[in-house]
Amino acid sequence: MSILVLQGSTRENGNTEQLVRLALEGISYREIALRDKWILPIRDQRHEEGGFDAVDDDYDDVILEVLRHETLVFATPVYWYGVSGVMKNFIDRWSQSLRDPRFDFKQVMSQKKAYVIVTGGDNPRIKALPLIQQLKYTFDFVGMPLEGYLIGKASKPAEILKDTRAVREAGWLNASLQSQVIPS
Amino acid sequence: MSILVLQGSTRENGNTEQLVRLALEGISYREIALRDKWILPIRDQRHEEGGFDAVDDDYDDVILEVLRHETLVFATPVYWYGVSGVMKNFIDRWSQSLRDPRFDFKQVMSQKKAYVIVTGGDNPRIKALPLIQQLKYTFDFVGMPLEGYLIGKASKPAEILKDTRAVREAGWLNASLQSQVIPS
Amino acid sequence: MSILVLQGSTRENGNTEQLVRLALEGISYREIALRDKWILPIRDQRHEEGGFDAVDDDYDDVILEVLRHETLVFATPVYWYGVSGVMKNFIDRWSQSLRDPRFDFKQVMSQKKAYVIVTGGDNPRIKALPLIQQLKYTFDFVGMPLEGYLIGKASKPAEILKDTRAVREAGWLNASLQSQVIPS
Amino acid sequence: MSILVLQGSTRENGNTEQLVRLALEGISYREIALRDKWILPIRDQRHEEGGFDAVDDDYDDVILEVLRHETLVFATPVYWYGVSGVMKNFIDRWSQSLRDPRFDFKQVMSQKKAYVIVTGGDNPRIKALPLIQQLKYTFDFVGMPLEGYLIGKASKPAEILKDTRAVREAGWLNASLQSQVIPS
Repeated sequence: MSILVLQGSTRENGNTEQLVRLALEGISYREIALRDKWILPIRDQRHEEGGFDAVDDDYDDVILEVLRHETLVFATPVYWYGVSGVMKNFIDRWSQSLRDPRFDFKQVMSQKKAYVIVTGGDNPRIKALPLIQQLKYTFDFVGMPLEGYLIGKASKPAEILKDTRAVREAGWLNASLQSQVIPS
Repeated sequence: MSILVLQGSTRENGNTEQLVRLALEGISYREIALRDKWILPIRDQRHEEGGFDAVDDDYDDVILEVLRHETLVFATPVYWYGVSGVMKNFIDRWSQSLRDPRFDFKQVMSQKKAYVIVTGGDNPRIKALPLIQQLKYTFDFVGMPLEGYLIGKASKPAEILKDTRAVREAGWLNASLQSQVIPS
Repeated sequence: MSILVLQGSTRENGNTEQLVRLALEGISYREIALRDKWILPIRDQRHEEGGFDAVDDDYDDVILEVLRHETLVFATPVYWYGVSGVMKNFIDRWSQSLRDPRFDFKQVMSQKKAYVIVTGGDNPRIKALPLIQQLKYTFDFVGMPLEGYLIGKASKPAEILKDTRAVREAGWLNASLQSQVIPS
Repeated sequence: MSILVLQGSTRENGNTEQLVRLALEGISYREIALRDKWILPIRDQRHEEGGFDAVDDDYDDVILEVLRHETLVFATPVYWYGVSGVMKNFIDRWSQSLRDPRFDFKQVMSQKKAYVIVTGGDNPRIKALPLIQQLKYTFDFVGMPLEGYLIGKASKPAEILKDTRAVREAGWLNASLQSQVIPS
């Protein structure tokens, strides 16, 4: 089981990153910080004759990396009750991958497992529920099971470590992922 | 009552635009197509000493235009069960406006009224509900009442005109807005 | 297409009943007022050896009537952000029908179509959305498509007639149902 | 801090009860099994001249007990994606208490803290979210903060003990409640 973290935070070493590190402590994984990638918002060309134009940005590199892993962790702070803009831009571009002749996007994604890790400052265990539901619909669309989600409460730097509940839940996710790793 | 439509569709003359035109027929309004603006995703600098750096893009022009109007219509297709990336990027940047010394963002926004118009292809009257809830929390945060929302079902170009329910609801919104316009 | 309204209001001639009448004007249907039926809350005996005991109340009569119709309209006021207690008690008892050897409950229900009509006083177009989502999951479980829902805003008697939006939407539902009726 | 558990399960010693026991281990509390109380569904008489008639059942005893405690734990299995019928009937009757001249229901409730513990068999961490949102709106209405909720996955008897995540979260709730107890 190879793990890829898609990191949607736009702040280095922020609460979302810290919660990810707690959840994945002792586990080998690769992380892509979407803030370091240049990914343009989608331009809907589904109904144009030639379909989508090629876009000269980092999306293709990132999606090819996604396709190489078995477990995907979508990590994002709650920005205005949704995923961060850099993550939304990335997911929106899946519409392009759905029409990419190089692979059967839905089929490949349906073989993966998804986890979600979010942190937010404004009552996230209630107000981030629409975000979770959106991602659930998103993963359902490509047939990828959502295996679990963590919601942490934090706003100021390092505050997540005081959210004893999120820390415990990260411990659960860690144990759960550890048990799935095939020892080398 | 001056009306500004923030158009989140990335396709010219798409279903969301058509539903907006039905809803606003005979009413004077200004529309900003966010796809024609260059607005970068937010980079979270809330916790940096100097706060947010100035960003050299179109956000400032758009938000100043927003502040000038009394009624805001957030129009967006449903992209992966959320607002479009260009709209998400725009809303995320409000975090910057909250710290803008030129105005009291929350106070000014709380004097406005919001409407939402969305169209989607995949059972939007159920699967766009998290999107509506997310925008509701967003408007609540700045104290701006959500006066109403329309959800239309459409995917292919012009399909919205066959959604007889959405057409009727656009008629309701039109009548409601007409009744608020002070005759010149 | 024979229509059965399951009326969950506990007040005669209340707003929910009025909205139903608008939606079904000129259409032949049968209505069961659940308040006039004696239906006990479920007692979970799924895991007992003999399964569920027979319950001596009106549930059986009502469910047999349900099974006889092709279109079901679930009408309920919003009580504490959910369906009314009399309607919840009725739906909970479906767990018993799932184990009833006289019929294949899921199979029969999956042949029907469902509509939902709700009225509420406290911002129902936002705060009744969890109720709609709950009913959607319920109908999904038995494979019955949710064809549409109306949400009206009303609290005091007859107030629903002032909700011009709900009145229009009832007109849409009326036209939609009329078009499905096979002329006799 | 005196704790009252309102137990909505209709099965003795079921998963919801077991999860409650884990969460409250070593803590003194009182529990009312709503299944052992005779509480009728509400009959809406808000708009009748004399208001609500007195109802000869156990509701009054239970609500008086509720008013005596500082912390309320609403424990319920997920029945058809909502709280159980016996719990819904109980909550619906709050409309009567809102008009009870013996106390200021909202004011008294707003001084309490609420927790929610639910267990369900069908993907409850997604499909019980509308239930959580409903209860949040319910508690908001009376001004009572929702301090936390647990969602466990279980269907067959004792299955909850295999939900290692729920068991950990119960540990968090236990520690959280222990820290609030004033030592005698």
